[in-house]
Amino acid sequence: MKRDIDGLMQERGIDVAVVTGAVKGNATMYYMVNGVGISHAIVIKKRREEPVLLCGTMEREEAAASGLKTIDTSKYNILEMIKEAGGDRLAASVKYYQTIFEEFGVKGRVAFYGQGDVGRNWEFLKALDEGLPDVTVTGEFIDDIFITARMTKGPEEIDRIREMGRKTCEVVGHIADFMKSHKVDGGKLTKDDGSTLTIGDCKAEIKMALARRKIIEEVDTIFAIGRDAGIPHSRGNDSDPIELGKTIVFDIFPQEAGGGYFFDMTRTFVLGEASQEILDSYKTLEECYDAKASVYQTRTCDFFEARGIETPRTDPHVRNGYVHSLGHGIGLDVHEKPTLSDFSGNTDTLVPGSVFTVEPGLYYPDRGYGMRIEDVYYVHEDGTVENLTNFPRGLVLEV
Amino acid sequence: MKRDIDGLMQERGIDVAVVTGAVKGNATMYYMVNGVGISHAIVIKKRREEPVLLCGTMEREEAAASGLKTIDTSKYNILEMIKEAGGDRLAASVKYYQTIFEEFGVKGRVAFYGQGDVGRNWEFLKALDEGLPDVTVTGEFIDDIFITARMTKGPEEIDRIREMGRKTCEVVGHIADFMKSHKVDGGKLTKDDGSTLTIGDCKAEIKMALARRKIIEEVDTIFAIGRDAGIPHSRGNDSDPIELGKTIVFDIFPQEAGGGYFFDMTRTFVLGEASQEILDSYKTLEECYDAKASVYQTRTCDFFEARGIETPRTDPHVRNGYVHSLGHGIGLDVHEKPTLSDFSGNTDTLVPGSVFTVEPGLYYPDRGYGMRIEDVYYVHEDGTVENLTNFPRGLVLEV
Repeated sequence: MKRDIDGLMQERGIDVAVVTGAVKGNATMYYMVNGVGISHAIVIKKRREEPVLLCGTMEREEAAASGLKTIDTSKYNILEMIKEAGGDRLAASVKYYQTIFEEFGVKGRVAFYGQGDVGRNWEFLKALDEGLPDVTVTGEFIDDIFITARMTKGPEEIDRIREMGRKTCEVVGHIADFMKSHKVDGGKLTKDDGSTLTIGDCKAEIKMALARRKIIEEVDTIFAIGRDAGIPHSRGNDSDPIELGKTIVFDIFPQEAGGGYFFDMTRTFVLGEASQEILDSYKTLEECYDAKASVYQTRTCDFFEARGIETPRTDPHVRNGYVHSLGHGIGLDVHEKPTLSDFSGNTDTLVPGSVFTVEPGLYYPDRGYGMRIEDVYYVHEDGTVENLTNFPRGLVLEV
Repeated sequence: MKRDIDGLMQERGIDVAVVTGAVKGNATMYYMVNGVGISHAIVIKKRREEPVLLCGTMEREEAAASGLKTIDTSKYNILEMIKEAGGDRLAASVKYYQTIFEEFGVKGRVAFYGQGDVGRNWEFLKALDEGLPDVTVTGEFIDDIFITARMTKGPEEIDRIREMGRKTCEVVGHIADFMKSHKVDGGKLTKDDGSTLTIGDCKAEIKMALARRKIIEEVDTIFAIGRDAGIPHSRGNDSDPIELGKTIVFDIFPQEAGGGYFFDMTRTFVLGEASQEILDSYKTLEECYDAKASVYQTRTCDFFEARGIETPRTDPHVRNGYVHSLGHGIGLDVHEKPTLSDFSGNTDTLVPGSVFTVEPGLYYPDRGYGMRIEDVYYVHEDGTVENLTNFPRGLVLEV
C-alpha cells in the first residue's frame, strides 16, 4: 500500500523518487496522481514528505483533483530555456529539471520511475547525472518501491476491483446467454439470417457489453474454441464457427475506462454436450481448484503430475497438459506482483491486502481442446481469502 | 516512411537500432513488427540489413505474421542465466543481450528505442554499456529515426487512416442524429422517460457507436458544452444537460482496435438556434479555414490578430481567443510529427506522405462558449492535398 513507500525508500537508500511520463499506460504515475485525467506530469516524492505534482497550465483543474500539492509548470518557461540554450533541447531539459530540483531541494540518490522512451531517457538521465553535482541518478532494476507497494491493496482499491468483478461477471453471463439464444443447425449455432455464429460475432458482442458498462478491453479478449483453446495465449480466430461439443476458453480482463484497475477471469464453456474426455479433464481441473493446492505452483505441479499430466516442472517446453504458472497479482496492471510461479528466487508471499488470480488450465491442442478456470482472490486483514468472482464454474451450456 | 530508416541511421552514425518493450502503447515497436498481436519483443535493425524480431515461444505463430525474420527467444534460456548469475537478474539480462548481440554481430554505436520503465532501463543500459566493450549504448533525445520516418506515410498506412476517417465520420453523424432524435423541453433535450439528456448519455452513445465499429477510445472523447467548450482540453462534465443554443465541441480521436492508426476530428454543434455572437465567431473561424492561411501557425495568428483576436503570439498565456497551435501529424500516435507550431527551432515541413490535422479554434470560457473545427489532411505524391474527413462543417443542428 502507499503507506509502505517511505519505509521502502529508507530500506533502499533512496532520497527522492521522481515519477515521469504520461498517466495513460503508466501504472506508477496513475497510482501516484490518484488516476486524475491529466496527460503528462512529474511527481516528486522526497522521503518522509508528501509528494508534489507538477503539470501543465491547461490541466491545472484536473491536477488539483488528485489531492496532491500541485505546481503549474508554466512558471519554469521551457521555451525560454530552449532559446537560452541556443536551441539545444537536451541542455534546456537539464536546466528545467535543475531549476525544479533546486526549488524543491532534490539531491542525493534520486531514483527515476514511470514509463517513457528508453533511448531518449538514457540520453537525458546521463546528461542530468553529469550536469547536477548534488544528484546521483539511479533506478531500480526489479521490484521497485512502487511495484512493491502496489502488491497490497487498501479498501478503496478493493472496492474498485470488486466493482470491476461485478461488471465482468455480468459480461460473461451476458455472453453465455447470447450464445444460448441462438438456434442449432448442423452442430453449429446459427443466426436469424441463417448464417453461422462466429467467434468474431461473439467478440463484437463482448465489445458492446463492455462499452455498455463503460469498461474497456486494453487488448483483445481471449475467446478461443477447440484447438485454439488448447493454446493459452491464442485470442481465437474471428471466422471460426461456434460449434457444439468443443471447449470455448473465455478469458476476459477488462480495465476501468480511462485507465485504472483491472479484473481478470476465465470460464470454459461447452455448448450442448461435452465428450467424456473433456468432462474427465474438467473434473481433474476442478479438483485441483477445490483442493486449494492451487495456491502454490509447486503444489499444483504435484497435483497434476500425480495424475500423469505433464507440467513445466517435468518439461520446461511443455505444450500438452498444465503449461503455465498458476496466477498473478492484479491491480493497475493486469499482471503485477505477487507472482504465483516457482522460478528461482521468487520470494513473493500472499499477505493481507494481496489481490491475485488463480488460473489452473489443461491444454491439449492436438486433441482439439483446452480449458482454464480463473478467479480473482483477495486476502482480508484477518487472513481470510475471499473470491471476488461471483460466477459459477459450470462447463456445459445447454442449448 | 520505413524506407527512410537506413538513410537516417547513416546520417546520424547509428550502426544498430534496438527496439524493446511491449507492442501495445509503443508506437515504434508496433511500426517495426507491423502491428502483430504479440505482447513483448526485441527488434534488431542493423544498418542496411533487414530487421530481426525476437520473441517468446508462446507467440511464435503471431510473430511470424509480421513478415520479419523471427527468432524464438526460448533458445537463450534466461532462467538458466539467472541461476548462473546467482540470482542477479541484472547481470543475467546483460548476459542475455550479450549472447544475442554476439549471435547477430551487434556492435558499434547501438541506439535503443521503444517505451519502457525509465529507471529500470537506466540501470540496464548502464550495465550493458559498461559490460560490453564492443558496444556504445546511445539514444536520441529528439525526433529519433523512427519518429522521423513515420512523418510520411505509405499507401497502406493511408488506406488504414482513410478507413478510420470513414468510421469516425459515421460516429459523428450518428451522434448528431442521436441528439436530434430527442424532444425539447425547457430549452433542454429530453429522454422518453422525461429526464434530461446529458453529456454522460452522449458519451455512452459514443462508446457504443465506437464499439459497434470495432474502434477504440484510447482516452475519453471530448464532448464539452458551454463554458467547458471554451477550455480546449476539457473533456466535458457527465452530468451537464444538453442545452439548446450552446456550443458543443465534439473532438473524437479513435484508434484501430488492438493499437494502430488514429483519426482525429472536431465538429462544433449548436442545437436549435445560435446567438449572433456565436454565428459571427464561427464565421471568422470558417473564414480562417477557407483562407488556407490555416496551414501555418504564423499565418493563422496573422489572420486572427488582424481581426482583433488574441493569440499565443500576443500573449503566451492567452485563454480567450485563439489559444493553441494549429495542428499536428497523426498516425500511430494521435500527436506525432510534423508539428504545426511556431516554436523556436521547429523546422517540420509538409511533404508528400504527410498526414496532419488542421484545427483552428476560438475560445471564450467566460462568455460560456468555445468552438473548434478539425480535419485530417493528406499530401499526395503529386503535392495535392486531400481532406480525409468527409463530413460537413455545419454549426447548427435543427431540432
